[in-house]
Amino acid sequence: MTNDSTAPLVVGLAGCGTVGSGLLRVLAENGDLIRERTGRDIRIKSVLVRNPSRVRAAPLPEGARLVTDAALLTDDPETDVVVELMGGIDAPRILIDRALEHGKHIVTANKALLAEDGAGLFRKAAEKGLALLYEASVAGGIPIVQTLKESLAGNRIRSLVGILNGTSNYILSEMTSNGLDFETALAQAQEQGFAEADPTLDIDGHDAAHKLVLLIRLAYGVEYPYAELPIQGIRGLSELDINFAREFGYRIKLLGQVNEVDGRLEAGVFPTLVRHTFLLARVGGAYNAVRVEGNAVGSLFLHGRGAGDLPTASAVMGDLLAVARGARPNNTGFVRQVPERARILPPEEARSCYYVRVMVRDAPGVLRDLAGAMAAEGISLAQIIQKPEERCGVPLVFMTHEASARAMDAALRQAADAGLLRTPAVYYRILG
Amino acid sequence: MTNDSTAPLVVGLAGCGTVGSGLLRVLAENGDLIRERTGRDIRIKSVLVRNPSRVRAAPLPEGARLVTDAALLTDDPETDVVVELMGGIDAPRILIDRALEHGKHIVTANKALLAEDGAGLFRKAAEKGLALLYEASVAGGIPIVQTLKESLAGNRIRSLVGILNGTSNYILSEMTSNGLDFETALAQAQEQGFAEADPTLDIDGHDAAHKLVLLIRLAYGVEYPYAELPIQGIRGLSELDINFAREFGYRIKLLGQVNEVDGRLEAGVFPTLVRHTFLLARVGGAYNAVRVEGNAVGSLFLHGRGAGDLPTASAVMGDLLAVARGARPNNTGFVRQVPERARILPPEEARSCYYVRVMVRDAPGVLRDLAGAMAAEGISLAQIIQKPEERCGVPLVFMTHEASARAMDAALRQAADAGLLRTPAVYYRILG
Repeated sequence: MTNDSTAPLVVGLAGCGTVGSGLLRVLAENGDLIRERTGRDIRIKSVLVRNPSRVRAAPLPEGARLVTDAALLTDDPETDVVVELMGGIDAPRILIDRALEHGKHIVTANKALLAEDGAGLFRKAAEKGLALLYEASVAGGIPIVQTLKESLAGNRIRSLVGILNGTSNYILSEMTSNGLDFETALAQAQEQGFAEADPTLDIDGHDAAHKLVLLIRLAYGVEYPYAELPIQGIRGLSELDINFAREFGYRIKLLGQVNEVDGRLEAGVFPTLVRHTFLLARVGGAYNAVRVEGNAVGSLFLHGRGAGDLPTASAVMGDLLAVARGARPNNTGFVRQVPERARILPPEEARSCYYVRVMVRDAPGVLRDLAGAMAAEGISLAQIIQKPEERCGVPLVFMTHEASARAMDAALRQAADAGLLRTPAVYYRILG
Repeated sequence: MTNDSTAPLVVGLAGCGTVGSGLLRVLAENGDLIRERTGRDIRIKSVLVRNPSRVRAAPLPEGARLVTDAALLTDDPETDVVVELMGGIDAPRILIDRALEHGKHIVTANKALLAEDGAGLFRKAAEKGLALLYEASVAGGIPIVQTLKESLAGNRIRSLVGILNGTSNYILSEMTSNGLDFETALAQAQEQGFAEADPTLDIDGHDAAHKLVLLIRLAYGVEYPYAELPIQGIRGLSELDINFAREFGYRIKLLGQVNEVDGRLEAGVFPTLVRHTFLLARVGGAYNAVRVEGNAVGSLFLHGRGAGDLPTASAVMGDLLAVARGARPNNTGFVRQVPERARILPPEEARSCYYVRVMVRDAPGVLRDLAGAMAAEGISLAQIIQKPEERCGVPLVFMTHEASARAMDAALRQAADAGLLRTPAVYYRILG
């Protein structure tokens, strides 16, 4: 560890896109503050890029060099820390592994790598006594990693619910507040730079799922295999459902959530109805938020910018300053650096209240048969509205009492088999 | 430091009231988790109390002893950490000073002590290389101390605004939501255990002010003398103003706030109008919340339980686990352990938009003369409502554009001198 040093902390920066440029800008603006807080300077020595001739958003700091050979970061004896902001999985894994091998601390924003393939890196960092820090990988500037690892360390976490993807939240907010349809809202998000040209990772829930896997590891000290996490995104979500949910007093949000049910974890990413009085329902635009319930702290809610150059750089800075201060590595929040596999509640056993919309024929007996299909699976209805006929049929909207996913699937399959539904049923969980 | 130890962390607990009992309960419930997170047990060896025969809310852990002599904690060679939950100023200062002298780490929830008289203790802890941690002293379970010291360490803090006193917030929430008057809401808070028999510290703003001084130190690395902080509480706040504020789309909240104005700090505790769309306006009951604006992170909002046995114990636990893990002390978030005096903007130069209510005679020319007094001080009005006559006159309510406190005072003094006001003017800031 870099203990009690007053020498500059020497950094190799891998990747100089949006976040990397943001980091250079913050380092330049806040240099005096960094010295006051750590007693040291942070010096960028090398910046690894693919194309050195590309113009970048922030000027290179004095004395820094652009390099295209990763070994000039990972193997450089003078470099203390490698900051990985490249994105992707294979190249950064190789880079981080090699940097750890050479005794470098790591700061990364790479949620995909740590969620899908982090175990080996955490093990190596632990063996070497090095920091492997990743606050920037979840929820941008919101200090949820630090909060789970340290502030809430004395709490048994009962549940965690988060709006973890700003692009999806922006799209849902625009659909809700401005009445846009999904395609228009997505196009607008792309125009405004909130969504990538290929928005798959965001709108199909994978980005939120990566972050959720990291949060589960921090909260429970276990590995929830990414491939086993139930994931449902917001692609094609209908403005009909946004509007019906509103009438019931709810907003639809893409939530990553986990809770402990009798010693097993029930987790997933789903579009979910959130009561409008909840703070989570008030999270607008590209913001992120996380609500944690602990057995001592009760309910804790954190809200902030979930992406963007400067908020993400803020998180990278927090980690870099911890390394500069010589903080003892506490990478996973648990003594066991490589967590055990999570005990998982089979997703079909998960229980929730549901919002259900079906499109039916305007005919006598349809409601009776539908209600019968629900009752046959033990699902009781809390509220129901029938709406005027639309193009695809008459919308019938239910809110149910708590039911298992298995019962809900079975009831809706039975309704479909009985020919009651003119289009497949749409159903979403309701946050408890 | 207690490094790489697997021996139990031995704790002396000073004070076993609400929070102390909560801590014992959390330690008992979460013992296995503590081992998983630190590799150690936390063992309470001694509990310092005034009256050993009093019945306590939590059973004493196995092997712990009740003591009445502070030296059995402070001077005990086996004790690693002293947790101070006594309250008061002089006795805990002497205890903490002596414990530091004997090489003990300190965890405390004592905002009054650290705000009014913390400098010597921080200096001694720094000299000795010991932890002096105080997450529990501000906003209960909300990890704002940790967030400012570590997560946001790379940010220049532009402003910080907080609902820091749960009792006041409970009273204001009840007045707003249930139409209670101040005295009734206070009595109800006392009945429900949210307010002390002597509520002075809470409702007159002193408790919030103590916490604000600590937050200013963490955010800016400077000492804002408690005695110089402008403080206005909510005692006697009128339901008239709660209701008029509502009509304009605002809630009245007791805010502790600081912001940097050209290198000087403008700070204080004031009842303040908060736009109903802001998350801060949504903080209900005994909850606390803090909003921080940093030059990288943007806006970050934290919300949680601000008091109570378990939420406060959660914060104490976070600090204790940091000591158990052998974290390097980072007590103030700055290298300089004893901060310089803050450069303070004279309170009369502070600028804000204002809500103003005056009670006037129902006579021609009164509005003209009042508006004239405002205009003479360069204050322009954004909105105005005149209300039907009340017992003490006709309420005239203004919302102003930005004005200095000096101009507002002068204008209202002039109006009073001219005999326009039947009762003293009431005016509050509006959060920008």
